[in-house]
Amino acid sequence: MSDVRRARAALSRLVEPGDKAVHALVGEVGPVEAVERICAGRGTYARFGARVRTLDTGRDLATAAKVGARLVVPGDDEWPERLDDLPTPPFCLWVRGPVPLGEALGRSVAVVGARIASSYGEQLAAELAAGLATRGWTVVSGAAFGIDAAAHRGALAVDGATVAMLASGVDRVYPAAHSRLLARIAETGAVVSEVAPGCAPMKSRFLQRNRLIAAATRGTVVVEAGLRSGSRNTVTHASELARPVGAVPGPVTSMSSAGCHQEIRDGRATLVTSADEVIDLVGDLGQDACEPARGPVAAGDALLPRDAAVLEALPYRGGLDLERVVALTTLPPLIVRAALTRLELEGLAETDGTTWRKRRSRTAHAVVQ
Amino acid sequence: MSDVRRARAALSRLVEPGDKAVHALVGEVGPVEAVERICAGRGTYARFGARVRTLDTGRDLATAAKVGARLVVPGDDEWPERLDDLPTPPFCLWVRGPVPLGEALGRSVAVVGARIASSYGEQLAAELAAGLATRGWTVVSGAAFGIDAAAHRGALAVDGATVAMLASGVDRVYPAAHSRLLARIAETGAVVSEVAPGCAPMKSRFLQRNRLIAAATRGTVVVEAGLRSGSRNTVTHASELARPVGAVPGPVTSMSSAGCHQEIRDGRATLVTSADEVIDLVGDLGQDACEPARGPVAAGDALLPRDAAVLEALPYRGGLDLERVVALTTLPPLIVRAALTRLELEGLAETDGTTWRKRRSRTAHAVVQ
Repeated sequence: MSDVRRARAALSRLVEPGDKAVHALVGEVGPVEAVERICAGRGTYARFGARVRTLDTGRDLATAAKVGARLVVPGDDEWPERLDDLPTPPFCLWVRGPVPLGEALGRSVAVVGARIASSYGEQLAAELAAGLATRGWTVVSGAAFGIDAAAHRGALAVDGATVAMLASGVDRVYPAAHSRLLARIAETGAVVSEVAPGCAPMKSRFLQRNRLIAAATRGTVVVEAGLRSGSRNTVTHASELARPVGAVPGPVTSMSSAGCHQEIRDGRATLVTSADEVIDLVGDLGQDACEPARGPVAAGDALLPRDAAVLEALPYRGGLDLERVVALTTLPPLIVRAALTRLELEGLAETDGTTWRKRRSRTAHAVVQ
Repeated sequence: MSDVRRARAALSRLVEPGDKAVHALVGEVGPVEAVERICAGRGTYARFGARVRTLDTGRDLATAAKVGARLVVPGDDEWPERLDDLPTPPFCLWVRGPVPLGEALGRSVAVVGARIASSYGEQLAAELAAGLATRGWTVVSGAAFGIDAAAHRGALAVDGATVAMLASGVDRVYPAAHSRLLARIAETGAVVSEVAPGCAPMKSRFLQRNRLIAAATRGTVVVEAGLRSGSRNTVTHASELARPVGAVPGPVTSMSSAGCHQEIRDGRATLVTSADEVIDLVGDLGQDACEPARGPVAAGDALLPRDAAVLEALPYRGGLDLERVVALTTLPPLIVRAALTRLELEGLAETDGTTWRKRRSRTAHAVVQ
């Protein structure tokens, strides 16, 4: 293993994600020299002393190997280039799972939300994720309870690609109840972390993990979020990175949707109701654009207003002459005559030569779409 | 009664709402001369012949008087000036009810929606209307089944002002099942129409009635609407008049909310979840603005990120010295020391002089708001 890879692995153990000072140092002198200075422990780097004393990158690499995790560093084929949009991109990523990470994240959407979710939210998250996965999009989430887990499961259910970004080392199972879920994700997709194997999940690491989820994906969808849900932190990161954000609405009586509604009101998120609308939001213009939602189209829907008024005046039985239709609609006779002709051509009206009536037809009431 | 009033009453019987040609004529020669020309029936005005033959304005005025309705024309004190924003304002209004119409509509919101509404939608419409009415806003709707009726009822339930705009004459009860509802509105608010007493409700009149609702109010809120709901027509009118439009979200699994979601996605409507948010949307800036929705605030919420990281590192029992906190957080000692001082001052941490720990306090977990 190259010195650079080893140094980056060491940094992921020594330094908290998002540490601007060390990031600037790495930018200045490179990772190998940066690790040397941190380990020397002089001046501002004394704060890393306790971690330097227990640093054992060989052990971390061995732990990774034991759980089938590999080290991915900037410059590797599978490095997700989108992460370089971050002010403080990860020093490296630890990755468990068969998918080439960069490729999988190329067309990816973050599906996130509250841990305390309603069954409405969980079902939607699963459906949305399944829909996205079916259309070839990778579903990225945080493997937490609630919306996160539902999203991963939705993608897995259709044999889709899904990536879990953890706040702890990739060898750790958090929450413990998701042991089987994480194993399944690692079998077919990827379990990813920027902190070294063995590292514990901590609040600050969850917040930094959220920035990874936002940065690694083309856009983020919040399915359910209370006003104080951590998933709104992911939205903040996505907004800062100018990634599109979608939010799924729900009943206004449900506090689980209040955060989503607030994001939409604040203009930080676009209201989305389906996988197609999510892809419309995050996908490439043209290639991925979806049709706006429409109700069923009935024959006669596209009529000019005056033609519609004339049609409305006609009876199904008997018939009305031109003068009578003029009287009912108060439209000029020329307009009524032209409207009757158009309605006849479209099969909506019929005439005996003197009077007109509505034409009963199967298509007139059929739902075209 | 002046000739002008009588002429406007006649126009409301002879001419369909929104007839641009007659509107232009009235603008040119005034209502009296316009009625004379229409009654002469020459040229383009022949189309009104059938109605001219049965015109009896005295009878219409008598019918109005019988149901306690009055004629309101432009220039009257209670003429709602906002209607003059319309390209084709009504020739007059027929009004049943004790409220001075212009004043009641001064602070008014249209609350509209689907006739086929869910119980979620109806309950919300009633709550929203009650909230608006309680805050002194007049609730305007169309007296239809579903959302409209729920909105009127919500306002009536808190003795608030509510105005029903009809597509038929004010003496007609449509739908028939709303006889009691319309009577209650007429007792305390106002039942209004721009077509003469006796006129039947027709599809084209419903569409024109929707333009009145949009024009007469400061803004429109759609509570529930399918993709093809007529209430979206009201939204179109409101948008064209540059009146603010709000839409209430709902479950994406409910087709009754699909039209609302689409309006929000199209940027024609702002997502609203409460009466306060509606008033924020349609009210005067400053005077009526509402606070954004917030979750409960816990002590420590406003902490600097580094203070929060330090607080997270502290135990409840025992204590950690400065060096240990530095080791756990990898923050520079100066920053850790400053953070500990701030946390102590805020009552979130305590110290024995050498070590620090979290302070258990009632306020630390109390919900402040």
